Amino acid sequence: MALIVQKYGGTSVGTTERIEHVARKIKAFRDNGDDLVVVVSAMSGETNRLLELAEAVHPHARGRELDVLLSTGEQVTIALLSMALARLGCPARSYTGSQVHILTDSEFNKARIRTIEQDRIRGDLGKGRVVVVAGFQGVDEHGNITTLGRGGSDTTAVALAAALKADECQIYTDVDGVYTTDPRVVSDARRLDRITFEEMLEMASLGSKVLQIRSVEFAGKYNVPLRVLSTFIEGPGTLITFEDENMEDALISGIAFSRDEGQLTVTGVPDHPGVAYKIIGAVSALNIEVDMIVQNVGADGLTDFTFTVHRNDYERAMEGLREAANELNAREVRGDTRIAKVSLVGVGMRSHAGIASKMFEALGREGVNILMISTSEIKISVIIQEKYLELAVRALHDAFELAGPPEERIDSART
Amino acid sequence: MALIVQKYGGTSVGTTERIEHVARKIKAFRDNGDDLVVVVSAMSGETNRLLELAEAVHPHARGRELDVLLSTGEQVTIALLSMALARLGCPARSYTGSQVHILTDSEFNKARIRTIEQDRIRGDLGKGRVVVVAGFQGVDEHGNITTLGRGGSDTTAVALAAALKADECQIYTDVDGVYTTDPRVVSDARRLDRITFEEMLEMASLGSKVLQIRSVEFAGKYNVPLRVLSTFIEGPGTLITFEDENMEDALISGIAFSRDEGQLTVTGVPDHPGVAYKIIGAVSALNIEVDMIVQNVGADGLTDFTFTVHRNDYERAMEGLREAANELNAREVRGDTRIAKVSLVGVGMRSHAGIASKMFEALGREGVNILMISTSEIKISVIIQEKYLELAVRALHDAFELAGPPEERIDSART
Repeated sequence: MALIVQKYGGTSVGTTERIEHVARKIKAFRDNGDDLVVVVSAMSGETNRLLELAEAVHPHARGRELDVLLSTGEQVTIALLSMALARLGCPARSYTGSQVHILTDSEFNKARIRTIEQDRIRGDLGKGRVVVVAGFQGVDEHGNITTLGRGGSDTTAVALAAALKADECQIYTDVDGVYTTDPRVVSDARRLDRITFEEMLEMASLGSKVLQIRSVEFAGKYNVPLRVLSTFIEGPGTLITFEDENMEDALISGIAFSRDEGQLTVTGVPDHPGVAYKIIGAVSALNIEVDMIVQNVGADGLTDFTFTVHRNDYERAMEGLREAANELNAREVRGDTRIAKVSLVGVGMRSHAGIASKMFEALGREGVNILMISTSEIKISVIIQEKYLELAVRALHDAFELAGPPEERIDSART
Repeated sequence: MALIVQKYGGTSVGTTERIEHVARKIKAFRDNGDDLVVVVSAMSGETNRLLELAEAVHPHARGRELDVLLSTGEQVTIALLSMALARLGCPARSYTGSQVHILTDSEFNKARIRTIEQDRIRGDLGKGRVVVVAGFQGVDEHGNITTLGRGGSDTTAVALAAALKADECQIYTDVDGVYTTDPRVVSDARRLDRITFEEMLEMASLGSKVLQIRSVEFAGKYNVPLRVLSTFIEGPGTLITFEDENMEDALISGIAFSRDEGQLTVTGVPDHPGVAYKIIGAVSALNIEVDMIVQNVGADGLTDFTFTVHRNDYERAMEGLREAANELNAREVRGDTRIAKVSLVGVGMRSHAGIASKMFEALGREGVNILMISTSEIKISVIIQEKYLELAVRALHDAFELAGPPEERIDSART
């Protein structure tokens, strides 16, 4: 008998029929003897409906009252799921974030969880009840309703699993696991049985949108075994686990990519201490997050800087960079938004030198020019022209032999 | 500077435009220097939408989880109204029933209020904020969300006014006050400036659906001055007040009527002690509420009983009555659902003997036969054939000269 925390996202509970489907899944786990704590999101579309109502009465609504409004979305789902379970003869009890004391700080709209009270949940589990908790929401020390920001239901589930020392935290979604890369780009992309937390963090932050990055960080920090599964297709999903467990024998776990970046370059700046700060600091001061940063080795006491930002921030970053460039008497400022980032991710590459050269070789063979390179312990990222993105991903997927054997490919079909 | 509790019903906050309208009304009161606590219902249609969702997952959903679901309706409104007020530069803070500790018993779906915590509300008022409270809902001693049953937002408002010792509790609705009778039946029905609690109770229970009867009882019990006004038409509305205040000089305040009754008669039962109990007890045992009861003076040791019940309960009541009649060897059992009840209400009739005869005379002149009569201190009710209902109401409205002068009739126009 295991204690499992399950989380069902907005698509999984998007209609009353789907809520009934989820209730039947939960009932099957209960019949199997497991104790279950279930976290649910708002029915898909509901959060947007509420945001439209808010927009109508206040074009810039945010803060405390927005959280009072948005938290109703999950509250509707917990009640409906508990009713659906009751109808199946499966006793259940719903709790809002406030009722189960998911204590957060007071940062409305993006609060962070501090502690969770366990007594009520353990009491209900002891009575054989399924505990249904509203995701995405909590309460601050003054009793105000808070929300964790979009996608925060994953974080609720992981935090509950950590607090309850659950055997596993299962995130049910509309894909059946984490893939070697996006199957829409590479048709023979393979579902991974396991992936490490570090790899998952790189995959998530690099554009693979299966899990919310905060929940992965949280799970890694509190040693919560995390599994991604499909609500609609039976299967083992992907277990996100610790490196010392029995890993798949692979150098590379997957290929992540992103089209959301813009590249900015300033050339001919003095190669002095403090110059990097003057350039990047000018952009950070505008509250813009800088992703990759590359500085070339200089000549004649001058050097070049290139960095990338989210494409939405590109115009503002360019303004900040121009000002800094003026102060530094830089030679030139230029930029490009028609770029993309492709990253190889894998803990196996730590101890293997040849990965980078094999990557560059595969891209060169296809005539893909590399504009920037950045490496970390478990990933290599390159910036290329956007038009080559699909070609590059497919070439790398082949070069590192990430495709599964045919029989595996069948059960990795996406919904 | 007065402390006013205002309540806006579902129609008054039925769209975001109407919520903005209500916000402007509230702002005007604030600019006038009044302290305001505002109670709101769910947007019209929202409660039914939620009930349909519940029905889809559980055809007989009720109890704890239904209250978790339904309470979201008011929570949406408090957030939206607070946002709309903030946009007008009018600081506001919303509270769910749970947050402001509207402590109730644990009778889910029809809970009763026990106490209300004042500290938070007074703290906000002291900071110049409008306090916006979700109607219809509370929390029990275990932290479970409860609801007061349909229409319970009126009760929330009155309970808050009582707890805060407010100067007035204003119920905003889609009619601009209490009328001498339904203006859809009598075109020159007049809006009353004042009516006593006792009269209002009789009017409400007799079918005038302006106010929820529980809230009127509550207001009378805790001496809360209650005013009914229109959200959409400016005007003084109707003040529900205490008898010792300066009352209008009228014998009759209004005429209430109801089509919702069924009449049952049993004839030829023994005229013994305990027989009334055997008859009425048989119906009460079925959880059916009995309204009017009349027993004629008997002859030959036998007597006749007639009583009325809500038309929905008529068939079941008839079954119960037949069984009781069998045991009592009654002569006959009969019934009629094509009846209506018409009542004159007014504290003035206490000291005036001629009211009843004047009523019967007016009905007789129009050829309306009276089937049953029942009287109390401040009302006379008659049961008549349903087809004569409008005729009877108009005849009585004329006979007791309830119509207002023309200039009053203009501002009493209904929305």
